[in-house]
Amino acid sequence: MTEAVRDLAHLSHVELLTPRPDESLAYFRDLLGMEVAAEQGDSVYLRGFGDYELASLKLTASAQAGVGHVAYRTHSPEALERRVQALEEGGAGGQWLDGDRGHGASYSFLDPDGHRLELFYESERYEATPELQPALKNQPQRYPGRGAGVRHLDHVNFLAVDPGENRVFLERHLGLRLTEQIVLDDGVEAGVWLASNQKSYDLTYTRDLTGARGRLHHIAFFVDQREDVLRAADIFLEHGIVMESGPHKHAIQQTFFLYTWEPGGNRVEICSGGYLIFDPAHEPVVWSQAERAKGQAWGMQTVASFHIRGTPPVAEEEALLAGAAR
Amino acid sequence: MTEAVRDLAHLSHVELLTPRPDESLAYFRDLLGMEVAAEQGDSVYLRGFGDYELASLKLTASAQAGVGHVAYRTHSPEALERRVQALEEGGAGGQWLDGDRGHGASYSFLDPDGHRLELFYESERYEATPELQPALKNQPQRYPGRGAGVRHLDHVNFLAVDPGENRVFLERHLGLRLTEQIVLDDGVEAGVWLASNQKSYDLTYTRDLTGARGRLHHIAFFVDQREDVLRAADIFLEHGIVMESGPHKHAIQQTFFLYTWEPGGNRVEICSGGYLIFDPAHEPVVWSQAERAKGQAWGMQTVASFHIRGTPPVAEEEALLAGAAR
Amino acid sequence: MTEAVRDLAHLSHVELLTPRPDESLAYFRDLLGMEVAAEQGDSVYLRGFGDYELASLKLTASAQAGVGHVAYRTHSPEALERRVQALEEGGAGGQWLDGDRGHGASYSFLDPDGHRLELFYESERYEATPELQPALKNQPQRYPGRGAGVRHLDHVNFLAVDPGENRVFLERHLGLRLTEQIVLDDGVEAGVWLASNQKSYDLTYTRDLTGARGRLHHIAFFVDQREDVLRAADIFLEHGIVMESGPHKHAIQQTFFLYTWEPGGNRVEICSGGYLIFDPAHEPVVWSQAERAKGQAWGMQTVASFHIRGTPPVAEEEALLAGAAR
Amino acid sequence: MTEAVRDLAHLSHVELLTPRPDESLAYFRDLLGMEVAAEQGDSVYLRGFGDYELASLKLTASAQAGVGHVAYRTHSPEALERRVQALEEGGAGGQWLDGDRGHGASYSFLDPDGHRLELFYESERYEATPELQPALKNQPQRYPGRGAGVRHLDHVNFLAVDPGENRVFLERHLGLRLTEQIVLDDGVEAGVWLASNQKSYDLTYTRDLTGARGRLHHIAFFVDQREDVLRAADIFLEHGIVMESGPHKHAIQQTFFLYTWEPGGNRVEICSGGYLIFDPAHEPVVWSQAERAKGQAWGMQTVASFHIRGTPPVAEEEALLAGAAR
Repeated sequence: MTEAVRDLAHLSHVELLTPRPDESLAYFRDLLGMEVAAEQGDSVYLRGFGDYELASLKLTASAQAGVGHVAYRTHSPEALERRVQALEEGGAGGQWLDGDRGHGASYSFLDPDGHRLELFYESERYEATPELQPALKNQPQRYPGRGAGVRHLDHVNFLAVDPGENRVFLERHLGLRLTEQIVLDDGVEAGVWLASNQKSYDLTYTRDLTGARGRLHHIAFFVDQREDVLRAADIFLEHGIVMESGPHKHAIQQTFFLYTWEPGGNRVEICSGGYLIFDPAHEPVVWSQAERAKGQAWGMQTVASFHIRGTPPVAEEEALLAGAAR
Repeated sequence: MTEAVRDLAHLSHVELLTPRPDESLAYFRDLLGMEVAAEQGDSVYLRGFGDYELASLKLTASAQAGVGHVAYRTHSPEALERRVQALEEGGAGGQWLDGDRGHGASYSFLDPDGHRLELFYESERYEATPELQPALKNQPQRYPGRGAGVRHLDHVNFLAVDPGENRVFLERHLGLRLTEQIVLDDGVEAGVWLASNQKSYDLTYTRDLTGARGRLHHIAFFVDQREDVLRAADIFLEHGIVMESGPHKHAIQQTFFLYTWEPGGNRVEICSGGYLIFDPAHEPVVWSQAERAKGQAWGMQTVASFHIRGTPPVAEEEALLAGAAR
Repeated sequence: MTEAVRDLAHLSHVELLTPRPDESLAYFRDLLGMEVAAEQGDSVYLRGFGDYELASLKLTASAQAGVGHVAYRTHSPEALERRVQALEEGGAGGQWLDGDRGHGASYSFLDPDGHRLELFYESERYEATPELQPALKNQPQRYPGRGAGVRHLDHVNFLAVDPGENRVFLERHLGLRLTEQIVLDDGVEAGVWLASNQKSYDLTYTRDLTGARGRLHHIAFFVDQREDVLRAADIFLEHGIVMESGPHKHAIQQTFFLYTWEPGGNRVEICSGGYLIFDPAHEPVVWSQAERAKGQAWGMQTVASFHIRGTPPVAEEEALLAGAAR
Repeated sequence: MTEAVRDLAHLSHVELLTPRPDESLAYFRDLLGMEVAAEQGDSVYLRGFGDYELASLKLTASAQAGVGHVAYRTHSPEALERRVQALEEGGAGGQWLDGDRGHGASYSFLDPDGHRLELFYESERYEATPELQPALKNQPQRYPGRGAGVRHLDHVNFLAVDPGENRVFLERHLGLRLTEQIVLDDGVEAGVWLASNQKSYDLTYTRDLTGARGRLHHIAFFVDQREDVLRAADIFLEHGIVMESGPHKHAIQQTFFLYTWEPGGNRVEICSGGYLIFDPAHEPVVWSQAERAKGQAWGMQTVASFHIRGTPPVAEEEALLAGAAR
């Protein structure tokens, strides 16, 4: 990248669908330590203590678990226009929406796998309510001292039938950069990690082995210390939350992770660490099939469900899990 | 020590006096993460998640801050009898009390400086209420996931006009062992650290420069990780709690510490680390005046108030502070 | 326990046998951060920075991996005599040895499964060499700042055909206390955790499924923080050390753990956390077969090798592993 | 910032001058855990394990302590040309240098206070030597497991007679963004924190109270966890390194810090934490004189030397320190 497009500023928020809205809300508020920033219709808007915008999670009651949409904020109004133009010229155009709690008009479209994405620029900077006033003026709100105490939304991991196709789409139309990648021996891209800024990734696609489209693998929230992830595990244990995998360290991206299932059925990761990319000419790190087979950084083999289940659930998962158990 | 008396099992609880009972209760419950185990009269009984007895803190409304009493549990009924006999033969006898919430009959007496101590054996093992049932059966109650999340009472630090006199009394009558000590150039013992078990200390005396008697320097609660102390500092910051000193590491005993003032006016320490004493013939570590003058382990000089203020407050403190500021 | 025998002071050291002495030494010195305290014959004596005795690990070149002996220090010469008398009266007598580097005469005997144990009282308190002088006089030597930086030997885990038989032996003859226990549905004791002091365990027996006798499951060294275990994992990763399981938290004893294989073939744990037992009348925590089947505290299922392999290796392990993989 | 210039990619390296090159080298290599990447003339080039370029520290033997130069890498060759043009048009032009170990031609110029800055684009991506090969291919070199284990250069803090003047210069000519700022009651800018990317700062100016020009306050290296800073303090303690202030948390920028004096006389910070700036329209956080007077985040008052001393040392420091002690 020499004069690369850097029109996207950052991953802004995700809309998560839950068939158990009350229990999901309790999970994010009491166990992750998020605050309710707004409520509207069937949705509750939540935020981590470090989110500068109104909310990073829109939790919407729904018949099924899954992801509603994922939104990026652009660097400027002009950057937004440029991205919309690129999408429309590329035959990937969508439509303008009026905006939502916390942000102005957004442009909504689908990636090749069918996930809904939105772009917007106009955003409401969060102003803390009196009871959430921070002690330090460079922090958007008070540190909660409750549950995991997540700082901000870290990344979203979509499932896709063809991660590589989606990578090309996002590089071309949004200017996202590929930072790490799994390429199997047959050339198939089994996973792609993309970044809009110096965080080494904010959007990931891994293969949906069920063949379904538009599904979610997980969303992830950031905590400051690896010890915070361990403490979160102690808290999840006390509340009967399923911990599918971790705490452990990813080889890819080096993130220290813990995967849980929130009561609505979506996989949620608590993560810390990783690295920043300073090199303006950074070359993607490519992992081979053999390298991937080594498991996580410290040797843990991930459980089969991690590679198969997503939301919304589909019937094909069961056959795949039965096969993995043989 | 070859066949040393080890009749005391451990520091059991402390009664803390507060002129602001509601605010003090909020401090211990919401910011330290303790649970209310019982209430009776003007007292609330609180516990850390790792305390195996009913409570380690009895918080009693009072006109002035300070310490009501400090209690040790003995190893057995016979050990209790032996200690009572030793006290009475030594002219330090007190009287039997009927017991209190959480324990049976106790023997109450004064140390030479006038602090009230109690010994008892019969104790109520804590049984968690349904909402505090732990996930792991080797833990007395659920980990709270709230505030600092203190595990148990760690130690009590009395002020005394003559720490050495109190040390001799406790070694002789209770079988406590001296583990570390400050001896000034003139031979005065400026601080003594005593232990009833393998924790390197549970009762400390440091000099009361005001000449007052029976005062408290601080009580301390334990957290598992140094990182927990740092996180507690972030929480105290958000709630306007005065942090007098720390987080830092003590040279003496190596404890990682943070001193706060609870709203009732008593100094409360959040601590972690330190070391266990395995050597049955352990020799006390003696610090000279020059060694003590070096400050804390990593070089921080403790503020003057730390060496002067105690509870209840006395008028002499102000003159000493003024002198220290000159 | 009311007037319990507490004649054993603490686990002192373990002799580990290795067919690759140079590589094993490099593991303990460079990756665990231990110091060489002495060398004699085919043995190197190593210490953690917090060990107050000369050494906690005697590493001896040998044709096969495994454990040479495990030694406890008693509280006094009289306590040593009492334990020897109890062993001899119980028909479990051994013989006196002249002592070794770091300690005086010891009494050597076998547990029912055939592991060699030693008891001694006279011990050499470590005096730091000039280059290992600590900055704080209450610490035996300088903190190394190298590798994992282990503080001291934490515990030893023997394999045994019948853990319950060995438990009874150690309770009766040595006064060790049972603190936690796995009892299967058929009444078999699959695991016993024993303690000589307030650490909740220092000697463990778990079932040897191969039927072999006198084998070792692992030895464990303590680090101060859970974060130190994570950092150790990063270091082991860089040096190609096999990490069999963890970092994770045990349900039993709550220890935060990481199991590695040192180059000589012995399993070595890096651990932190756990809890102290203050209750003089502590009742053992009994885990049922169903409770044990839940896996570790945060849900990880331990790999099959963890339940089967020990040192020295025996041929029966392979058939068991093949069975577990089916 | 709507379509802001973002021509600078990141802070690349700093040249530090030392009158005690051997001791300074030992400090950075053995205590900070850096690796020697190259040597040339009177200079040694060092790197943290996460630096993607050859080196982030050029340590040069010199008669006096201080800073030689500070270098930024640009996003592209074109970005470099644009910045040079801006400097020359602004009357702040310097000269081209042939390059140095690790990078190509650089443009060298002075800030208004007289510090030497360099810009370059062509850079050598570090290739690990065989003994420093990392286990994970997304990491430039092996994690050292030695000393503090710093990841990368974090920031440089210059002293300046007029921080505000330098801020304007850097905003205008280099496109650095102001993120936090101290403005005294008389309007003087006592401190400015500037960023070239999403790290909330990489270059800071604070007031030089001595009136001298071109001096250094400190350079800072990053570690991943706050616990790493505490562990570093334990290591510095063992090696007699002066710890001037900390570990503690800054109110400004929220960095967790520890300030030491390296043997050559320069102040070096070990830091962790802080926050990322995602908001493309971020407004600088302005701290008033009264807010600044509150001390660090958790209440510690910084020692007088911290506000007065810099390198090279000047005679005026002594009078100021004497005044502060009154």
